[in-house]
Amino acid sequence: MDIDNYFEKNREHILSEWFKLLKLPSLGADPLRLSDCARTAAWLKKYLKAMGFEVEIRIPHQGLPVPVLFAERVSSECDTTVLFYGHYDVQPADPAEKWESPPFEPCLRDGRVYARGAQDNKGQSFAFIQGLRALIEEGESIPTIRLIIEGQEESGSAGLLEMVPHLGDQIRSDVLLVSDTCCAGNGQPAIIAALRGIQNMTVTLKGPDYDLHSGVHGGVAPNPAQGLARLLATLHNQDGSIAVAEFCDGMIEPTEEERSLANRDQLSADAYQAETGCPPLGGERALPPVERAGFYPTIEVNGIFSGHTGTGPKTIIPSEATAKLSMRLVPGQQIERTLTALKKHLVSNCPPGLEISFSEIVKGAPGFRLAVNTPIFQIAERVLRDMDSRGAVFRWEGASIPIIATLRQYSGAAPLLVGFGREEDRIHCPNESFGIDQFKQVMQWSYSILSALAF
Amino acid sequence: MDIDNYFEKNREHILSEWFKLLKLPSLGADPLRLSDCARTAAWLKKYLKAMGFEVEIRIPHQGLPVPVLFAERVSSECDTTVLFYGHYDVQPADPAEKWESPPFEPCLRDGRVYARGAQDNKGQSFAFIQGLRALIEEGESIPTIRLIIEGQEESGSAGLLEMVPHLGDQIRSDVLLVSDTCCAGNGQPAIIAALRGIQNMTVTLKGPDYDLHSGVHGGVAPNPAQGLARLLATLHNQDGSIAVAEFCDGMIEPTEEERSLANRDQLSADAYQAETGCPPLGGERALPPVERAGFYPTIEVNGIFSGHTGTGPKTIIPSEATAKLSMRLVPGQQIERTLTALKKHLVSNCPPGLEISFSEIVKGAPGFRLAVNTPIFQIAERVLRDMDSRGAVFRWEGASIPIIATLRQYSGAAPLLVGFGREEDRIHCPNESFGIDQFKQVMQWSYSILSALAF
Repeated sequence: MDIDNYFEKNREHILSEWFKLLKLPSLGADPLRLSDCARTAAWLKKYLKAMGFEVEIRIPHQGLPVPVLFAERVSSECDTTVLFYGHYDVQPADPAEKWESPPFEPCLRDGRVYARGAQDNKGQSFAFIQGLRALIEEGESIPTIRLIIEGQEESGSAGLLEMVPHLGDQIRSDVLLVSDTCCAGNGQPAIIAALRGIQNMTVTLKGPDYDLHSGVHGGVAPNPAQGLARLLATLHNQDGSIAVAEFCDGMIEPTEEERSLANRDQLSADAYQAETGCPPLGGERALPPVERAGFYPTIEVNGIFSGHTGTGPKTIIPSEATAKLSMRLVPGQQIERTLTALKKHLVSNCPPGLEISFSEIVKGAPGFRLAVNTPIFQIAERVLRDMDSRGAVFRWEGASIPIIATLRQYSGAAPLLVGFGREEDRIHCPNESFGIDQFKQVMQWSYSILSALAF
Repeated sequence: MDIDNYFEKNREHILSEWFKLLKLPSLGADPLRLSDCARTAAWLKKYLKAMGFEVEIRIPHQGLPVPVLFAERVSSECDTTVLFYGHYDVQPADPAEKWESPPFEPCLRDGRVYARGAQDNKGQSFAFIQGLRALIEEGESIPTIRLIIEGQEESGSAGLLEMVPHLGDQIRSDVLLVSDTCCAGNGQPAIIAALRGIQNMTVTLKGPDYDLHSGVHGGVAPNPAQGLARLLATLHNQDGSIAVAEFCDGMIEPTEEERSLANRDQLSADAYQAETGCPPLGGERALPPVERAGFYPTIEVNGIFSGHTGTGPKTIIPSEATAKLSMRLVPGQQIERTLTALKKHLVSNCPPGLEISFSEIVKGAPGFRLAVNTPIFQIAERVLRDMDSRGAVFRWEGASIPIIATLRQYSGAAPLLVGFGREEDRIHCPNESFGIDQFKQVMQWSYSILSALAF
């Protein structure tokens, strides 16, 4: 089938339904948006039922009660069972003033759809569903398809992580398909050979009970903003490597083959600077950037706030200071051990006179790395070579999809992560977007890989 | 005259006029509040004219055009000229949610008036004016009184600092009276023997052009929030002393007599903890707290912000990070030299890959220290012993009133700073307040010292 033709014939349906999905502000981490998440799950249920799926919505017992969608379409012709995982929750849209059009009012400009979630992951997941829809309409034989679409991926998947071990045969599958990743820098299709794990923690230092006058008390009261700076400065060594004892314990170094394959997808420092506006000088600077992102852990400060943040001076010693941290983990690191090591480090390096406390702890999920010469990857490479004559590259991804390691374990499925995101999509940032051409690539991939797995 | 009686007879007038003054949100550092500052100056002009003052309002050419009030009431009987300095601008009122009653709706509760500016400095200045009013009504002989009431004290007095050197004979005076300070910890009246200077600076580190995904870019892109933490951590040594080269150059150490007098007003660590909620472990911990505040400089972080500051995780590498700094200076330090030293330190310690920039630079004003055995201090001690049988103590104040050093230089006047603030007034903090008993103390002081200077 020609996906371009199919898209054009169905353009009005696809765009209008996709826009409906994007209009729902499904911020899965925000307790005030629970009803929007429920509406999003209900919308997806209705859409999938119309495609012949049995659909069930379940509410997790861990974390926020953000609905998870389980759908199944049993095949009478094929033995293969494919599990597709996606998420309907999105990142926060702040800072609101940096959006050129409102984040939850999708807008098509120059062949790209702008909205929070346009790509990550409503866009890619909905495109995958459209590829499947084309295949169903054609009447070809199709594997049994199981879908899990959740609403807490962006905040650690606590609910689904708790559910999966109890699902037993309901999720047993042969292949685990996910379209939540990117192409290589040059646009070549990419098969994901690794994801980093993720966990989160918020740390707060308390000084005085209330903001103090910085003249009267300056040099006397301990300053939590300065204390937090001193504390965060201890997390890394001068060379950019992690300085937290026991945090990296057990970490598995990449093989020479992995290093060498990963380094084929090298981005030059100049190209990186042109794309992002900064040189690739974060992390352990002695290593090539692509290895730092793919094979090594991080501790990042995602946000920090204390005291006066408005215009002009305000001469206070703030009462407290807070930093939001997230950690990316690699195979061999244990999620309990890293959290414990980090807390221990922060407590023992807390400057005198300040009280430390932790909140918003997300234990999270481990990272994983896959062998590259497996049968499923060979099928994928063939399909992708049909789509792009350059064929596919392997990517050791720095990002995380928290649930994948656990889904792999309990479903028994071989993970196959192929997505068509690009840096210009600016996911997690203001003005997130997804190109119509990328949307069609995901449709093509979905259509072709499901056909190839129909045995 | 019995000030208590006078206050009770005039209670309605005093409170209603004071409340009118407090209702004006005269945030002198906020460009959006210029008209409120103008209204405040106009209100004061009208009030002082009714008391027999010639009043002129001038707009400064430096910094924001926040009006400065010059008033004069010439004496036919006395040779002495007294210059009184006060300020009508107030600190920002954030965080708004921590106020029990709105900051610009004054509220009398349990003998205290709650409002931003209730004490600092609208309250103390208005009380001083009421003491003068009592003296005028009594028909006693009064020195020539010159008033300067400005609107940028809380943000460095840039406008007035530029004006003063050009004022010549208009400000020549014998004594410079100011009521913008506090009593000793035990409530005993205090004569201020020193003030620290102040300057401000905002520093921003820029990393990527937009917030980056912390998975894809974590360990690759330089993180400005982490970079800022590393940078701020270099400002102080492990013992709490300042680590910026050349910042303390020329600093004059206190004499043994000054140290010994200052240490009489020692606050115990337990009492400090009970009052503020934190132990006195800021600054150079080897020195007694009272010496740290009175005789040594500081570099404080008044505010810091970067990236995600809302609820839940947002896994980004922020595009930039900002810290608001203020410095307190002591005699011997030069305001240009400290600024240059600090900038040089920050530039040379900026972590790799980040761009540093400076804004909101307020060059500020130097600190000063006065000899304690002068005739004017002897008069003040006598007056204060009449008010409190314990007599007065000297205080080497950690706070700043930026203009005093310059006013002293160009007016030729001997500074006499006596105020009746207390720690519980929580100036610069939410729920600032001023006790009616304190208000009456300032009135009594104003009445008595002006009587004593009428020769």
